[in-house]
Amino acid sequence: MKYCEGKTFCFRKPSVLSYAAVVGKAENEGPYGGEFDEVVEDNKGGEDTWEQSESLFQNKAVGHVLRKADLTPDKIDLLVAGDLLNQCVGSTYGLKEFYIPYLGIYGACSTFAEGLLLSAALVNAGYVDTAIASTSSHFSTAERQFRFPLNYGGVRTPTAQWTATAAGAALVGSSGKPPFIRAATVGKIQDMGINDLNNMGAAMAGAAYDTLSRHFKHRASHPEDYDLIITGDLGQVGSDLLYDLFSRDGVDIQKYHKDCGLMIYDRDKQDVHAGGSGCGCSASMMCGHFFKRVQSGELKRILYCATGALMSPTVVQQGGSIPGIAHCVEITAE
Amino acid sequence: MKYCEGKTFCFRKPSVLSYAAVVGKAENEGPYGGEFDEVVEDNKGGEDTWEQSESLFQNKAVGHVLRKADLTPDKIDLLVAGDLLNQCVGSTYGLKEFYIPYLGIYGACSTFAEGLLLSAALVNAGYVDTAIASTSSHFSTAERQFRFPLNYGGVRTPTAQWTATAAGAALVGSSGKPPFIRAATVGKIQDMGINDLNNMGAAMAGAAYDTLSRHFKHRASHPEDYDLIITGDLGQVGSDLLYDLFSRDGVDIQKYHKDCGLMIYDRDKQDVHAGGSGCGCSASMMCGHFFKRVQSGELKRILYCATGALMSPTVVQQGGSIPGIAHCVEITAE
Repeated sequence: MKYCEGKTFCFRKPSVLSYAAVVGKAENEGPYGGEFDEVVEDNKGGEDTWEQSESLFQNKAVGHVLRKADLTPDKIDLLVAGDLLNQCVGSTYGLKEFYIPYLGIYGACSTFAEGLLLSAALVNAGYVDTAIASTSSHFSTAERQFRFPLNYGGVRTPTAQWTATAAGAALVGSSGKPPFIRAATVGKIQDMGINDLNNMGAAMAGAAYDTLSRHFKHRASHPEDYDLIITGDLGQVGSDLLYDLFSRDGVDIQKYHKDCGLMIYDRDKQDVHAGGSGCGCSASMMCGHFFKRVQSGELKRILYCATGALMSPTVVQQGGSIPGIAHCVEITAE
Repeated sequence: MKYCEGKTFCFRKPSVLSYAAVVGKAENEGPYGGEFDEVVEDNKGGEDTWEQSESLFQNKAVGHVLRKADLTPDKIDLLVAGDLLNQCVGSTYGLKEFYIPYLGIYGACSTFAEGLLLSAALVNAGYVDTAIASTSSHFSTAERQFRFPLNYGGVRTPTAQWTATAAGAALVGSSGKPPFIRAATVGKIQDMGINDLNNMGAAMAGAAYDTLSRHFKHRASHPEDYDLIITGDLGQVGSDLLYDLFSRDGVDIQKYHKDCGLMIYDRDKQDVHAGGSGCGCSASMMCGHFFKRVQSGELKRILYCATGALMSPTVVQQGGSIPGIAHCVEITAE
């Protein structure tokens, strides 16, 4: 069977006009604490349920984006959003009050890259002037949905990752100022045969390798052409697998690589096992940390490759595997 | 609060190159039986689980689309797909073997319109040459997930709709031949305060009204300018509400209106209560019935407005409401 190479989308005008991250207490106690726009200290943020709390995080993130851009919701042409919850309720309920045209997406933890990619493509083509990419995740909603309700007190395995309680949102338009979104490659579903709900890094590494390889090829670029290659939440297990896959092609990616899942928590002091995960993990790291550094020119050219484990507890209980996907977005200061 | 009008996307070149529908036994016993590309007589299609069966339906639909266009998967630049299942597994598992770049979307029963809209936008802008929009639904997977497992033998209420066991897929490119995709309007999330999992028509009617109204305004068109205005699956309850909402503006839409949920089954003979529903309902009616009639010129200009109830059993159990959304796509013979 011949495989489709796909196309890397190239953009001329889109840039990120404003961005914001809202995180929980544990995320703010990590190495990047203090870089986020708002910290919600209480797991529920004053809401009755965890799901409502996750919606609140995403609502707040988009609110900060609008405030920082000094725009009201009626000036935004499009929202592109999704999350990990069943039927993406973090996004639906968090964003419904804005009454902005809404495209729901599902890419598991790759959602923020998919949202940026689509926002940039639609702005660049002139369909909309402004679009917000938004996502969220929450430790307590994700554990209940994908593994066990927290009240069970289940023991976590060494390969398990900790779903970040966090939301990130970015407004894409064309201001002529950095950070610019220059190119993007859509991922393919890759099934590595992993069927352990606590080993998502391994399920996603192959997808990251495939998307990054195609992006390098289509852009005629190499890892050393980027200041950083940032993956979403491969964690330790997935990152090691990614290095191994690239090393077979004689490519050393480790030198330029950072993984948001390995950055967001202090793994020596915080008990997060193989690292952070969740849509909000890389979204909050991009919106709290990385976009600023591209905007200031400290980073000139980065590649953001968010990875997602397209897993369903129903299918895993039926003995099925967990396919992965990864979308990548190239962001530059010039 | 001022509300965003949004923008209607206008297209020059995209057309539907091929399309296919795969349905179950009950759907083929309805008034449009015989118009579909394949009928899977057995609920499970020879698979072990209902979820695998739904994946099979979607896999078959895309297979027929490729066969009818005489193309292999490596010639397709993009898949845009989603479904009702948790983590959209009907699409993930059904489409992974094609190794085509994949954008996951979530719009509940509005998914097929969202997929067509994005495929047309990305083809028209030149990012890709070909894209397939694909979706599915399955009565047994949907009942288990959103209401009760079938084995409970629960009694259905009069407002309940019957989730179609069906898949539809369409290949968008630019052949210069009809059906052409000329314009599309992205829906906004509309919450009418409905919290009955068995009354989705009411939850979606407001969204259909909002999107259609904006589409008419942006296109400077009226209901009478279209041969048909086709909604996804409002059913009887939702359709009546839609007429009522438009009548308040002095607009009579009923004369031009058809609802796929009211078409797919013979409601006198088949016990489907308020009509059909599910992503596969309008997707299979578009791909089995309507596209053919636009292609032949029998229908010159139609508006396809698929509606989705963005509902989550978790949130409904917590007392939350069911927001609706609707995306609309204008399709012409010339």
